[in-house]
Amino acid sequence: MTTGTLYGVGVGPGAPDLITLRAWRLLTGVPVIAWPAPGDGDSFARSIVAGCIRADHVEIPIRVPMRTERFPAAEVYDAAAVEIAAHLDAGRDVAVLCEGDPFFFGSFMYLFQRLSDRYPFEIVPGVSSVMAGGAAIARPLAARNEVFSVIPAPLDDGRIEAQLAACDAAAIIKVGRHLGRMRALLDRCGLTAQSCYAERLTLETQKLARLDDMPGDAAPYFSMILVYKGDEAWPSPVLETGS
Amino acid sequence: MTTGTLYGVGVGPGAPDLITLRAWRLLTGVPVIAWPAPGDGDSFARSIVAGCIRADHVEIPIRVPMRTERFPAAEVYDAAAVEIAAHLDAGRDVAVLCEGDPFFFGSFMYLFQRLSDRYPFEIVPGVSSVMAGGAAIARPLAARNEVFSVIPAPLDDGRIEAQLAACDAAAIIKVGRHLGRMRALLDRCGLTAQSCYAERLTLETQKLARLDDMPGDAAPYFSMILVYKGDEAWPSPVLETGS
Repeated sequence: MTTGTLYGVGVGPGAPDLITLRAWRLLTGVPVIAWPAPGDGDSFARSIVAGCIRADHVEIPIRVPMRTERFPAAEVYDAAAVEIAAHLDAGRDVAVLCEGDPFFFGSFMYLFQRLSDRYPFEIVPGVSSVMAGGAAIARPLAARNEVFSVIPAPLDDGRIEAQLAACDAAAIIKVGRHLGRMRALLDRCGLTAQSCYAERLTLETQKLARLDDMPGDAAPYFSMILVYKGDEAWPSPVLETGS
Repeated sequence: MTTGTLYGVGVGPGAPDLITLRAWRLLTGVPVIAWPAPGDGDSFARSIVAGCIRADHVEIPIRVPMRTERFPAAEVYDAAAVEIAAHLDAGRDVAVLCEGDPFFFGSFMYLFQRLSDRYPFEIVPGVSSVMAGGAAIARPLAARNEVFSVIPAPLDDGRIEAQLAACDAAAIIKVGRHLGRMRALLDRCGLTAQSCYAERLTLETQKLARLDDMPGDAAPYFSMILVYKGDEAWPSPVLETGS
């Protein structure tokens, strides 16, 4: 009997119409859809593609208790892999929903590590929230021969400052409870005026702000700070008009 | 009279079904589509969405002579902006096709700079070829608190080596005629075994190879080298099976 195929499907940054045609076709075609969710809340990934999901889809929630910066509980992925493998063994394709892109700072890798040596697989790339950030502030993230770095905020100050010094532009991701520390760090680096805060990109609740208009120490987990150091920086028309 | 809206539309890395639902809807709805092309060749961006383009679409070619690493001819964009502005003034929406994502190392910024202060605009983010690279080699580009850098190959060796030393993973883009130099550089850095060459990602002509299986000094312009230095690197199942 032929086994099913494991699909890692990027569902993009949040807006339902920012998934790809391939993701849409796959999700409406597969019998089984697995999605990540916090321990006791709704799944952001599922909410993006809710319009694809029918009553006859089998759904597999993968509930990972939210412990920012902790290596996710291996047991959760062990159990999910067993459940997914049972469907694959029975010849049923399984699509795993991934916020943004499956292999860009996502958790899909934990399932992939457990299953990819035994089953056929296909990865469907998605629009990263980093690209959605550039679109939202209406300014290039990077151009020509500039170096662009994606820097997780949980790293220590020294590592982040060295990265910011070396690159031309950056996205600081996973800002969350590091907002206050990042604001102080960017101020020390003289980059406050070139930094833009963004959260819940492409959703109706999207928020963009100049970094110095964002007081407080914490932000939602899905937030980022875009920093542009390039020669030809021009003001973001979005922020200038005070959106 | 209301002016038209300028749309910068990311069309993804190459496969026609890796455009977003939003891009598809927009392109089938607008009356005018502009696309970049080399001086005397076909437009890659147009080829991706050829299935959206009808005989009654007005098409505006933006032909930029291919001079890798040269700042693109300002006159070409001046002229294209005038032509696009005439449609916008007449109330017609114009979609500009952008390979990958509009604001991630693309040329859309040159038109945007010339038009965004006078016309309403909207940017539609797209799947970057960098994400397509992770999907193709079936290995995470970056995860957890790793730093990921996008490094243009035309930069000098010193700058590239410093970036590679500082990050955990990288995509070296615009490899083109720098292939031989990049291979030597990555060898000096001891990163050959952790580097993967990719070209024409997501197209039927896609090619993936271990870097040391890529002799020669030059590669196509749309090629990249993915480098993974992370602790938990595991072999790319795609390359191991010799695709």
